[in-house]
This record gives sequence, C-alpha cells and structure tokens, in this order.
Amino acid sequence: MTPPSVLDQQAASMLPAVERELQRQVRRMDTPGMSPFHRMLEYHMGWSQARSRRPPGGKRVRPLLALLVCRAVGGRWQRALPAAAALEIVHNFSLVHDDIQDNSPTRRGRPALWKVYGMPLAINAGDALLTIANLAILDFSRGTPPRTVTHVARMLQQACLDLTRGQHLDLSHKQQRSLTVRAYWSMIDGKTAALISACAEIGAALGGAGTPAQLRYRRFGRLLGAAFQVQDDLLGIWGDEAVTGKSAATDLVEGKLSLPVVYALRLNGRFAREWSKPARSAKRVATLRSLLEEEGAMAYATRQAKRLTNAAVAELEALHPREPAASALNELVRRLLGRQA
Amino acid sequence: MTPPSVLDQQAASMLPAVERELQRQVRRMDTPGMSPFHRMLEYHMGWSQARSRRPPGGKRVRPLLALLVCRAVGGRWQRALPAAAALEIVHNFSLVHDDIQDNSPTRRGRPALWKVYGMPLAINAGDALLTIANLAILDFSRGTPPRTVTHVARMLQQACLDLTRGQHLDLSHKQQRSLTVRAYWSMIDGKTAALISACAEIGAALGGAGTPAQLRYRRFGRLLGAAFQVQDDLLGIWGDEAVTGKSAATDLVEGKLSLPVVYALRLNGRFAREWSKPARSAKRVATLRSLLEEEGAMAYATRQAKRLTNAAVAELEALHPREPAASALNELVRRLLGRQA
Repeated sequence: MTPPSVLDQQAASMLPAVERELQRQVRRMDTPGMSPFHRMLEYHMGWSQARSRRPPGGKRVRPLLALLVCRAVGGRWQRALPAAAALEIVHNFSLVHDDIQDNSPTRRGRPALWKVYGMPLAINAGDALLTIANLAILDFSRGTPPRTVTHVARMLQQACLDLTRGQHLDLSHKQQRSLTVRAYWSMIDGKTAALISACAEIGAALGGAGTPAQLRYRRFGRLLGAAFQVQDDLLGIWGDEAVTGKSAATDLVEGKLSLPVVYALRLNGRFAREWSKPARSAKRVATLRSLLEEEGAMAYATRQAKRLTNAAVAELEALHPREPAASALNELVRRLLGRQA
Repeated sequence: MTPPSVLDQQAASMLPAVERELQRQVRRMDTPGMSPFHRMLEYHMGWSQARSRRPPGGKRVRPLLALLVCRAVGGRWQRALPAAAALEIVHNFSLVHDDIQDNSPTRRGRPALWKVYGMPLAINAGDALLTIANLAILDFSRGTPPRTVTHVARMLQQACLDLTRGQHLDLSHKQQRSLTVRAYWSMIDGKTAALISACAEIGAALGGAGTPAQLRYRRFGRLLGAAFQVQDDLLGIWGDEAVTGKSAATDLVEGKLSLPVVYALRLNGRFAREWSKPARSAKRVATLRSLLEEEGAMAYATRQAKRLTNAAVAELEALHPREPAASALNELVRRLLGRQA
C-alpha cells in the first residue's frame, strides 16, 4: 500500500473543515418556514439524496486551492475558511444557472436542481447561493481587518462579473460557427479561469502575501483555470460516462463550442460540414467524435492543456511556496490535468 | 401653476445624480468585446429603445428613499450615491429574474428582457446586475471607513437573502389555495419590504446615524415596503393599463396570490370557487375582479395599505428627521399610496 500523498494529507485535514463551513454558511437559509428552500440548496450542494458513485458535491477543488495558497504564503488556512466556502458556493451558483441555460438534465450523476424543482425555483435557488457566498466573504468580523475584507470581497465580485461575461460569450456563441480560437480563450477566461484565479489570489491575500505576490498567484490561477477548462472540454467529449456523471459526449449533443470543436470548425473540413447539420443522433455524435480525432482536434486540445499546465507549474515554482502546501499545490495541478472526471 | 413640492425639488437634484451613478456602475460591463452584453443591461435599466409613455427605467423610488434618509439624519446625500445605485440595481436584478420565473412578457410597458434576448442570456444578465450592485456597494474606497463599507454591504446582502426567501415563498405558493394571510405577509416582507427597508437603513448608516436610529429607519422602511406591495397588488388588479404598463388585471391572469386574492380565498365563497377553475379567459378575469369587489377583498386590501402607511408615517415622525428631507419623505410615503402605477 502506498502512503497517502502530500495533497491527500492536506486535503484530509482541510476538506472536512471546508464541508462544515459550507454547511454553516448555507444554513443561513434555514430560518423558520424556510426548510424546504434550505433542502433545495442542500440537494444541490450534495448533502442529501446522494445515490451516485461520485461525490455528489463535487471535488471542492476551488476551496482546496484557496486554502493551500493561503498556507503556501505562510498564512493560517483556518482563517480563510469563510472565503474558501464563498468561492465554492459561487461555483455552485453558476452550476445551477448553467444547467438551466444549457438545458442540461443532469449534474454530478444526479438530476440537475431545475429538473427536480422546476426552472423558476431553481433560478431563485441560484440567486440565493450567490447571495450566501457574498455574505460568507464578508464573514470575517473577528480578526481580519475590515480593509482586507473589502479587498477580498471586491476580488470575489470581480470574478463573478467575469463569470457572467464568459457565460454571455458562451451562450451567445452557441450554435454559431464563427467562434475563433481567440474568442474561445476569452470565453473560458471568464467562465472558468476568473474564479480559479480568484481562489489563488484571495488565498494569497488572506495568507498575508503582499500585492505583487497576490497578482502572481492570480496569474498562476488564470493559467491553471484555463488548463482545467480545456481538460474539461476533452472529458466532455471523450470522458467516461460512469466517471464524469454526464452522459457520453454530452458536449457534442448540446453543440458546446469546446476547444476541440472550435479548432476543427476553423479547419472547415468534414467535421465542420457534419457539425452544421441540425439533428444530433447517437450515430452522428459518434461520427463527430471520430472526425475530431482524425482532424487532429483532440491532439491539439491535449497539447494546449499540457502547455497551460506546464506554464502554471512554472509560475508556481517561481513563487517559492512553502512546504507542505507547495508539494500539495504542485500535485493538485498535475492531478487536475490527469483527471478522469 | 402650483410651485414644485419639496419632494419634487429634492428629486430634481437627486435623481439626475442617481441616473449618472447607475450608468457609471453598469458601465463596468462595457469592456472590450462586451458591448452587446452592456446594451442588454442598458435596455433593462431603461436607457435605450424607450418608446413607452412611462419612464422605462421606473421611478427610482429606492435610491431616492436612501438618499432622503441619508439627508434626514444629517448626512451628505452625495456620499450615499454608490449605495443608492446598488439598491436600485438589486431591484432591477430581481425584476429580470421575476419576469422569467413568472413568464411575464412585459415590463414597464416594453417587452421584458427575456422576451427580447431569450431566457438563458436574460438569467445571466440578472446575475450580472446583482454582481454590479455588489461591486457598487463596495465602491466607497475614498472617504468612507472600511468598517462602514462592510456594515452596509452586509445589510444589502441580508436584504438580498430575504428577497430570495420571499421569492421562494411566492413561487411555491403559486396556484396553491392554501396561502394564509399570515404567510402572505411573510412572503411580501421578503419580496418587497426587505429591500425598501434596507434602503432606509443603509441611508441612515451612511448619513452617520447611530445603531438605534438605523434600526428604527429599518422598521420604517419595513412598514413602507409592505404598504407599497399592498398598493402594488391593488394596481395589479384594478390599475389602469395605460398607466401601469402591464396588461389589465395581469395578476389575475397569472394567478398571483396578491392580498385581495388571499383574503377572498379564505372566505371560501364564489370567488374561491371561480379561482380554482384552470383557464383564465378575459371574461372570467372580469368575473373574478367583480367578485373580489363584492366579497370585500378590495376594501380590505385598501384598508391594509392605509393602515401600513399611517404606521410608517408615525414611525418616521417619531424619528424627527431634518428638513427638507423630512417633508420630502412624508410626501414620498403618501404619494406611494396614492399612486396610479
């Protein structure tokens, strides 16, 4: 039996605390008469009706990143818990609304929130999660100077604004054939990289790092977030359904403009012609997938994910993070690229 | 020609500044490549495609209230402008999502945002407005102590949380016949009164009032907000279509559980029997309206609106607000009750 890795050890001490903090923050909704609403939020966060093989709450990568960076700059990670919870809750808010916007019926191997409760209540539950995150980020009255609180609150809000920018680009490009690779990068920068970047930056700020180091951790997070999204794009087409919890090649069925698709559309070959046809039968989806492989789109996206990961690792190394967080961060980055789900 | 009232005079100096501040805050979205998204927000805020007789941005009651209270406690209203903008933007975020949730095609006499841009982009635009409001409330770096910033930011977030609570109750009670008058009050407390109450409380806090006065302004706002909602309920059934910008008796068509309806359902008479039938033809809506009048529901709701308004006025008088804001606030309260739209 191999001993647990540094990342596993760090996660084993941090993640239970993250989960308790998440539950404490979401419990704000559990006021008299509001239990049904609170249960909706619990369902989405993965604390109820867990019948899936996957952790129904997701992997909590964002809070883990924030806490590890906090430690890596010499801070006490426990102080950053409300912020770490805020970051994870913002992510979950965006998933609730994404699933409605994309008409996606499942999330983490279970019915998406809107499929269980209907669209109107689910929109509102997303709004509630965003608001709970905004309360969590302000939840530092004891110990943290108010100036730091407003500083990290602004960072979080800026990431949320970028999130809506990326989502706008994503939704408006959907079904278009005109998305350039350049537009793809700016879309995922907002949709994914901004929040992951905020995790690293906020972790650094709460750990006591100076402004230059905060900005460099932000850049590290930006690269990591982009790598993460490209990997997600690959899994959305070639991922194992049993592991990802989404139906196979769901991104091709839904017409998502992922990096392999954007790359292949630009080639204007057989894939581009097939893509432009409206209906997406299982057979046509299989054809689209094969064409992406033949036309080099899978290889291109895989190369990009590796390039971004290496750049993130280089940025991290130059920051000289402290152990054991340094090893854990390095491992986290590499594991995100190698992940199956 | 009668001279302008104190309220008109105050509004004439404050509202143009509010509008400029709103535009400044919303312009955060106007970054490279984001003009189409910014235009969506401008459309909803009423700064474009204004072909209606009504002010397409609404009456900006909430920022006006916040600024008047700020002045009433002796503060400089200009300092409260970003917060006043935040409050109005939160209101607008909730309208964008409400219209989707309620399937309402029009807003302020124009097509609702989701009718113009589709549901997915409109959900996202609502999220963007909420985020812009959250950035606006933190926008006090110059002059205001960080402790005050986090204090008012928490108040705003608490109001947002109450807003989602009220919305959850509203959406889940819809089409039910079981809503009690008591549940109605807790629903509108969240949906309407919480935000109006936050306007008064935040105005007082930024004007330099102490905690006891802040809490009493909050109570004043709570009463005013409830009065405002009951009046809105009356207009949703008996309002003049040309003035309200909504189609006539729209609340009866949509099955909204407004106070007159809740009151009459409890009587379990002819109205209750008619209400339980599914289809809502124009003729049946007219019948429902007449039955509400016959069964005393209109009179009941009118009495409640008056009672709440008088209580709000009494609370305000006991606070000894300074002139000229005092007269303007008094007039604002009375005008909200007497309003036609």
